This record gives sequence, structure tokens and C-alpha cells, in this order.
Amino acid sequence: MGSLDSHYEEENSSSNTANPLNPEEFRRQGHMIIDFIADYYQNMEKYPVLSQVQPGYLAKLLPKSAPNIPEPIETILHDIQQYIIPGITHWQSPNYFAYFPATSSIAGFLGEVLSTGFNVVVFNWISSPAATELEFVTMDWLGQMLGLPQSFLFSGVGGGVIQGTTCEAILCTLVAARDQMLAKVGRENIGKLVFYGSDQTHCALLKAAKVAGLESFLCATIGTTSTTAVDPIRSLSEVTKEYGMWIHVDAAYAGSACICPEYRHFIDGVENVNSFSFNAHKWFFTTLDCCCLWVKDPGALTKSLSTSAEYLKNNASDSKQVVDYKDWQITLSRRFRSMKLWLVLRSYGVENLRNFLRSHVKMAKRFQQLVESDNRFEVVVPRNFAMVCFRALPTRLKKEPNGCNIESGNIEAKLIDQEYANDFNRNLLETMNASGKVFMTHTIVEGIYVIRFAVGATLTEDKHVIKAWEVVQETVDDMLATK
Amino acid sequence: MGSLDSHYEEENSSSNTANPLNPEEFRRQGHMIIDFIADYYQNMEKYPVLSQVQPGYLAKLLPKSAPNIPEPIETILHDIQQYIIPGITHWQSPNYFAYFPATSSIAGFLGEVLSTGFNVVVFNWISSPAATELEFVTMDWLGQMLGLPQSFLFSGVGGGVIQGTTCEAILCTLVAARDQMLAKVGRENIGKLVFYGSDQTHCALLKAAKVAGLESFLCATIGTTSTTAVDPIRSLSEVTKEYGMWIHVDAAYAGSACICPEYRHFIDGVENVNSFSFNAHKWFFTTLDCCCLWVKDPGALTKSLSTSAEYLKNNASDSKQVVDYKDWQITLSRRFRSMKLWLVLRSYGVENLRNFLRSHVKMAKRFQQLVESDNRFEVVVPRNFAMVCFRALPTRLKKEPNGCNIESGNIEAKLIDQEYANDFNRNLLETMNASGKVFMTHTIVEGIYVIRFAVGATLTEDKHVIKAWEVVQETVDDMLATK
Repeated sequence: MGSLDSHYEEENSSSNTANPLNPEEFRRQGHMIIDFIADYYQNMEKYPVLSQVQPGYLAKLLPKSAPNIPEPIETILHDIQQYIIPGITHWQSPNYFAYFPATSSIAGFLGEVLSTGFNVVVFNWISSPAATELEFVTMDWLGQMLGLPQSFLFSGVGGGVIQGTTCEAILCTLVAARDQMLAKVGRENIGKLVFYGSDQTHCALLKAAKVAGLESFLCATIGTTSTTAVDPIRSLSEVTKEYGMWIHVDAAYAGSACICPEYRHFIDGVENVNSFSFNAHKWFFTTLDCCCLWVKDPGALTKSLSTSAEYLKNNASDSKQVVDYKDWQITLSRRFRSMKLWLVLRSYGVENLRNFLRSHVKMAKRFQQLVESDNRFEVVVPRNFAMVCFRALPTRLKKEPNGCNIESGNIEAKLIDQEYANDFNRNLLETMNASGKVFMTHTIVEGIYVIRFAVGATLTEDKHVIKAWEVVQETVDDMLATK
Repeated sequence: MGSLDSHYEEENSSSNTANPLNPEEFRRQGHMIIDFIADYYQNMEKYPVLSQVQPGYLAKLLPKSAPNIPEPIETILHDIQQYIIPGITHWQSPNYFAYFPATSSIAGFLGEVLSTGFNVVVFNWISSPAATELEFVTMDWLGQMLGLPQSFLFSGVGGGVIQGTTCEAILCTLVAARDQMLAKVGRENIGKLVFYGSDQTHCALLKAAKVAGLESFLCATIGTTSTTAVDPIRSLSEVTKEYGMWIHVDAAYAGSACICPEYRHFIDGVENVNSFSFNAHKWFFTTLDCCCLWVKDPGALTKSLSTSAEYLKNNASDSKQVVDYKDWQITLSRRFRSMKLWLVLRSYGVENLRNFLRSHVKMAKRFQQLVESDNRFEVVVPRNFAMVCFRALPTRLKKEPNGCNIESGNIEAKLIDQEYANDFNRNLLETMNASGKVFMTHTIVEGIYVIRFAVGATLTEDKHVIKAWEVVQETVDDMLATK
């Protein structure tokens, strides 16, 4: 056996010492991986949506050190099927309704694959002019689709840049705002700067502030993470204007909906803000990561974020005729991210994209109606987009309410009831997620534990929403039966 | 014609309104894209390495707004071939010797494609346990390959995290170092903090300091960007130890070489530093982006970078049994980056990986010998890894030296000569790059304009290095002939 093994290893080893980018081998393995992923999508519903593994499961299954000799792709794919897929929470499952969606698509996938194939490192224009210029084109297209004013577009005086995530977009704009304000009031006053957000602003703002120090900066949100609530941009921007404050609009989730005329009003007043960002990797068919940031004054960004070094100098940059995106973001190196966004826009077209988003909203509305039609449940906050915040009302469920009646008017009884309701809903959510049939997540709004049902996985159809509602009802029935 | 067009559009439109993640359509288009990229690699040498387009070329070729209706993938791929590829600087070309390489591989590509296919958003353990746990495994494997002490590994008390780029790794460690120092000396002393680097430290350090404020922090470099010089870790760490300073080792380029026993001595003393990073996307067969960062005290990172919000809470996180990588980095959302690194390690194995790197060093040595064998050229600084810094010596080239003789001993003459030499080499580099036959870049070392010849593109073979040298010689011959 030993000799057979080592013969195999040797043979295998020698076949793998070929150039690691040999085009014919690339073609062979590339086709295998496409089939592997296509099969994964086809079999998706067989897997529990939320991974059911326990902490530390993987280290037990894998060797303690890297192999010394090559392993064939067939073995690796076998291990991925066997060991990795059980540890994956399937964000592309049609039964995924957790957090916010990571709405994928064939076009988004192909775009990422193409840019991975080119594997260009795009820190400045010259390092691949097409990558920078396609980003101009795509960000202007998308800015128009959102009805952003010319002041945010390259065809105007502003411009757009694709960041990795909202955290980066907020950090960059925060640093620009800080430096702009310090230039006015003096560096020594850094300790006096403050920033504003609501209690529902994403924690990315706090994180960015920790990294950069406090600022005179306001972050408004279009579609908060907890409940998809919307801050009033126009009235906030009137205040920031008065005080010369930078105002950033974080539309990470809901920005995409604003390409539909019927949702555009949510960003009315955007002409008065300094910067605006939304994540195409959330609800816009583009794979992670792709955060679109537009600024009115790119100079404010580049003043804070530009670097120069001899080894990066080139005539194109010196000519000032080109944009070097390295100066618009935290990182120097950047992937060719506009490719996937461009493919999404072209492959689906504006009208279809609107219709895809509307179909998600319609499914969320359907779920909302189902919740509302059963008086054992309530929708907790108004639904704005494709996410429904609901909960079971266990006081109404219980045959014997044990004196805990939410209608009693007794404040103490109400508090006890709330705690009971919260526990019940936490239990409901955990039981559903543990079944592997659906994955939803929660938030707490003014002390109320709420289940978030976010529609947006590309494979989700009406039948999955109806099935999810059945899972909710059945789980509640079971919970009551065992009491 | 009009009716034919609209018929086509309608037919096409309806076929594209199918689910954007339909597995069979995914399979069809996925195979097309693999063939497209395989063909790209096969035809690579037909393209000029450095893109020859002019600023603004692309906007003229593309429509001013996104299409309203879907366009077929065939049309889009045609446009990529026609409009995008001419604007690409081909980092994967065997004739690419610029900056540092972005050494790609089939395994690295497949890993990125797989993680794009899964498209999971990995901010905490529960959002895909396999992604977090594979990162543990892979970072420990790689740490062992580098001979990092146990104190940096999960199997010890430290741990590794995959960041996007070195800029992020440096920013994160800088912020951790700042907060650690401020906890000792008081927040009010933020203005007194300083950071140290050499004049060859990467500009990422300056940028991070701009974002975060100054620190008591030292950044040592293994393989500087200009010349691949190496800072002495052991003696620097003795100083930082004395002053309680955080020391970070930036081995962005040369870290990978340290998996070879003969190069490991460059990071001797690493047991005394706080953090260590290298870019697997530079010279380690992994596609952009993949920066490996190890820290001895993960708590210092998470203290500065952690966030919490109700909507992210879950039992696994509460149990403290899992790592939530969101608290190890700037961004909350993160791609499943360990997949590609794992595939690289498994597909090639440690011994082959070493041999691949050695083959690049061998080619660089070959180029060095060629330079040294022609007395019209000189190697300017010692070659440490797979990069040769060289220049032409135009004083020796000129038939009539016009009194500018570098051996003259006259200081003024020497200065004039240096300027002349610098101009000559700048001209030489620009002429070679404009030919499309090779792409190299430059730096300036102590006033001397130097051409950097970095070997590492995966498709590069001996013959390409020899050809590159011929291009250098022919260009110089032509430059002299036209004088």
C-alpha cells in the first residue's frame, strides 16, 4: 500500500507542478467549479438554512498542518461538500430571511469571476485604466437611476467610488468631515468635535468614530438595520447647513429601492447632503463586497486620504487628467469591483431591476398580510420596504393568561407580560432557526423583542414565503401544545 | 428594422426575466465565462502589457446611461473584449514585471469563485461557522509554515485574521496600539503620541496615522516596496520592548518567501513583536484581496474594534466560545476569504509553493546576471528576493561623454551626470512600457532613478526574462542610435 500511495503521490505531484495558471488546466478545473456551484444552487433546499454545527467542529475534521504535496481538486471539492457546506449558513437559500439579504445573481457572480480572472490591482489609473473608467461610467449610471443630482456625478462636479462596505464609506467620509472642520476651527479643538446619529444608526458609525476620533458630522439612515426606518433627510440637512456640518446619508439597505419612482421620495433632499452611500451587495444583485459612495466634493476625501510615493508616480497621475481611486478610500490596492456592478446593470436593465425589487416588496407585503390575518400575531412597526417586523402575542395565545393581561392597564402586569412575550418570541425564533427550515433574525425595539423577516434572497418565491409563515404558525402551535 | 429590433428586445427581455440565479442559466453562463478567461490567458501575450489607452477613452465608447432592458451575456462579453481588455494593464501577463506581482493561480481563482458562489456575509461566527473556522485553520497552517511562534497562533494564545490589504492591517494594529498606550498614559495625551518608520516604510503607515492620529508605534518592513530592503526585527524589537511600544512587522511582499528555510532568517526575532502581516495576494498565488495578519493579543484588537448591536446578538457569540471576526477589522461584513488561501495551500502543498517562489528568485537572479554581464548597466541595490533594481549607466554608453564622467571625481560633474542618468533611465523605462512588450516600474533611491524588475507573474518563464532583457538592451541601442 505504501508504495502504491507514494507512487500516486509522485504522479499526482508531478502533474501539479505544471504552471499554476496553465490555461488548459484552468479550463478543466474552472468548468468543474461552475458545475459544483450550479449543483449547490440546485440542491440548496436540502440544506438547513442556518448551519447547525457546534463551535470548533471544523478543526477536528481537518489536518493540523498544510499538506506537503499537492492534493487533487477532486479531493478538495469532496471535502468542501463534506466538511465546509455543513458549516455554511446559506445566504442564497430561498428560505433565508435573516439580517438583510445578500441578493446575488448570475451577472453579479460573473462580474466577480471576470475581475478575479483579470486579477488587476487597481490603486491608480495606470494600473488598469479600464477599471477606473468603468467605475466612473457605472457610478454615473447608477447615480442617475437613483435620481442623484448632477452635483454628485462625474458628469457634474462630484463623483462616485465603490468601497468595500458601508463601514469603510462612513470612515472615509467621517475622516474627510473631521479634517474639513479642523481646518476651520484649528487642530487643537479635535477634542471638542462631536457626531450625531439616532439610536438606530448602524454601529458602523460608532466604530468609525472610534477609529478616527469624534467629529462634527451627522449620519442619516434610509432603512435602519433594526426596522428599516427612514430619517428625514430634508429637515436634517437644513440643520446641518446652518451649522456647516457634514451630512452623510447611509442608505446601505434601502438605497436600491430608490431606483423605483415610487420609493424615490425617501431620499428627497439628497441634493443638500455631502455624501450618500448604498450597498449594491445587499439588495441589488451584486456579490459582496460593493458599497457605492457618492460625494459632492471629492477634494475633501482626497485631501484626507491621499498618499504619494515615488514608486507610484506616473505621467497619467501627474497630468491630473485621471482619478487615482487609492486616494478615495482606506486601502491602496483595490479589486476591479465595477465589473460586477456593470454586468448587473447591463444583464438585467433598469426596468427589470425595479421589477425584481418590487417582487421582493410584494412578497414581504404578502407575509405582512398573513401576519395581520392571524390575531395571535402583530406587525410591530410599519413596513417600508421588503422587511416585516412581527411578533407573536403570547397573551392572546395562552388559554389561561395567569393574570398577565396586556389590556389590564396595570403597569407592573404589562412589564411582566412584555418580558414573557419577549421570551416567547426568542424561543419561537430559536426553535424555527434550529429546525433548519428558515432563518430569520431579531431586534429589540423600545423593549419589544421583534422577529425580522427580510425578503431578498434571489431564489425566494411566493411559495417559500407561504411556507415560512406555516413554519411560524406550526412552531407556535407546538410551543403551546407542549405547555 | 425597427420592428425586428423590438421583437428581438422583447424576446430577449422575456428570457431574461427568469430568476437571476436560475441554476441552469448559471451553469450555461458560468461555463462561458470560464472559457472566456481561459482564452484570455491563452492570448495574453498578444496584448500590450501596459494598457495604451488615453484618459477618458471609455466614456466615449459606452452609453451615457444604463440600458432599460436586459442585454445578453454574449453582447456584454463582446464589449469586454472590444472595450475593456484594451484598457487593462495585464498583471497576469508573463511580461509583467512592475510594482510587485499579483501572483495568481488556478487554486486561488477557484477559491474566490467558490466563495462568490456561496456569497455568505461573514461578520460573526453564526453567519457561516465554516468561514470563521476555516480561517483559524488556514491561518494556523500558514503561521506554522512561516515559523511564527505559538504566541501568534490560535493553537497558542494569539490568532490570525485575513484582512483585505496591508493598509487595513496597519490601521487596525495602529488603532489597537494607540488605545493600549492611551489607556496607560491617559486620553488627554493623544497629541503627544508618535509613530516610527524608516523613509522606506510603505505610505500605508502615513495614511493609517492620518486616519487614526499619531501613535507610539513602530512599523518594521520585511521587503520594502522601493527596493525589498529588510529592517532588522530583532534589534528594533529590543528598543520597542524597552519603551513598551507596539511593533508591527509589515512583510507584505517578502513574507511569503519566509516559508522557505533559506529565507526564514529575515524574520528572526518575530517572537518579540506584537503583530505581523503579509499579503497572500502579492506573491503567494492568492487573488486580491488577502492580507494575513497575526497578533499576539487579539484582545487589544477587539478592544478597539468591537461593536455590538441587538440585531447581531446570538447565543454563539454570547457563549464566548466563538470568534466574531467583525471585531478584528475595520469592516463589519467580510468575504469568505480563507477559502482561496486554503485551496492554494492544498492544491500546491508546502514544498511546491516553496519551489514556485524559488523559481521566481532564480529568474530574478538570472536577470541580475544579465545586467551584471553588460557594463553599460548596474544593479543599484543588493537583490534580496525576486526583484532586481537596476539602471543604465549612460556615461559609459555615450561615445562622447561630453565631459560628464562619473569617474571624474568632480562633484559638480557627478551631479550633472546623475540628472542625465536619471533622465536617460526614465526615458528608457517609458519607451519600453510604451512598446507594450514589458511593463516595469521605477523608484528613486538616494537621488538615483532606478528601474524595478519584479519577477512573480505566474505565467513568467525563463524565456520571458531573457526576452525582457533583450527589450532593455534593444531600447538602449535605439536610444543611442537616435542621439
